[in-house]
Amino acid sequence: YRKDTSDMSRVYNFSAGPAALPLEVLDTISGDIPDWNGTGMSVMEVSHRSKEFVELAARCEANLRQLLAVPDDYSVLWMQGGATLQMAMVPLNLAGPDDTVDYVQTGSWGKKAFGEARKFCNARVIADASDKRFTYIPEESNWDRSENAAYLHYTPNETIGGVEFHWVPDVPVPLVADASSTILSRPLDVGRFGVIYAGAQKNIGPAGLTLVIVDRALLGRAADGCPAM
Amino acid sequence: YRKDTSDMSRVYNFSAGPAALPLEVLDTISGDIPDWNGTGMSVMEVSHRSKEFVELAARCEANLRQLLAVPDDYSVLWMQGGATLQMAMVPLNLAGPDDTVDYVQTGSWGKKAFGEARKFCNARVIADASDKRFTYIPEESNWDRSENAAYLHYTPNETIGGVEFHWVPDVPVPLVADASSTILSRPLDVGRFGVIYAGAQKNIGPAGLTLVIVDRALLGRAADGCPAM
Repeated sequence: YRKDTSDMSRVYNFSAGPAALPLEVLDTISGDIPDWNGTGMSVMEVSHRSKEFVELAARCEANLRQLLAVPDDYSVLWMQGGATLQMAMVPLNLAGPDDTVDYVQTGSWGKKAFGEARKFCNARVIADASDKRFTYIPEESNWDRSENAAYLHYTPNETIGGVEFHWVPDVPVPLVADASSTILSRPLDVGRFGVIYAGAQKNIGPAGLTLVIVDRALLGRAADGCPAM
Repeated sequence: YRKDTSDMSRVYNFSAGPAALPLEVLDTISGDIPDWNGTGMSVMEVSHRSKEFVELAARCEANLRQLLAVPDDYSVLWMQGGATLQMAMVPLNLAGPDDTVDYVQTGSWGKKAFGEARKFCNARVIADASDKRFTYIPEESNWDRSENAAYLHYTPNETIGGVEFHWVPDVPVPLVADASSTILSRPLDVGRFGVIYAGAQKNIGPAGLTLVIVDRALLGRAADGCPAM
């Protein structure tokens, strides 16, 4: 940590997460307590059904859609439960128990995602960098892809081993990415993905929210036994 | 809403949720931005592994244990996903697919909890107030309890129909309560429950956190296919 000369009480925060927030954002939060937008309440207390909050949520989605150029046929969902819950929700919503799903393992997060998927369907590791302690990305041309995978899952950036994809894999099945630590760091061709999910606490804002961007063509496949969340 | 004369910009907020927060709490939050406790960051940015945050979390649990006199053999968990995720996690963690579990339905939330449980085990509605549009509590002596239920689930307060238990049911199986809208409103004999869960946004604080108090004797029964969260 090193002191920020513009405000001696602030430190530089290079942590992979939770994310540092811009001072303007912190000032706005502070200024909105205890009376947000003339509601007579802070935003933490206002009803999720109120006109003010519904507008805030719509503006938030519109801003994100603009920043990432999200195509109209994709839904933007703000969820709870972190990327960890999405690691289970992806197989439960996109694959049946007999379906095969492909996982590229280039680090600890991808390994965790595979561990969830194998509970619910025929999950296969089709590329694995654990032989060199997750320090590289196996050549895409050598991936042992399944014939009819319901999707292919990868982790564009692995914060623990420190391995990052600088390209989007080119595969003929829906591509699913845990983008927790790359989202919003650069432009993204959303149309090449089936699902992009990201815990907010690394690149977006405080912990507690999870962003899911999903191609609506993939929805409606959830099994009856899928939890509501 | 009616204006609070102590601070003309604040309103009285009688919503069942999200909860109103005390002004002292809001002042503290505001004062802790952008430098919480000399860390040089707000609490939203500080690492969950930092000494300061770990201490905060421990103090929070200790305070809750004191307020509710939580016995030592109960775990206090702070979760994500709201009461809705717990409605699935309770059957997935306490019952196998062939087990019977009992549900008392006195309102919309209990109905939702039953809807989740029936996905994972043999869930039975053993008392149902839907015949009078959830305006009463069926006599406990008339509940059609199962012989060997893994647990009995009820909702002490139903905010939509407005029906509240003023007693704790006396049953020979682990008692599970969705206490989202009663928790911390009065003393509670925690030892009479197997699991108490509560979304924070009604009686505890801002949305985003879910409290689970669980008798540790009930843990370790989760099926292999239970999502990590």
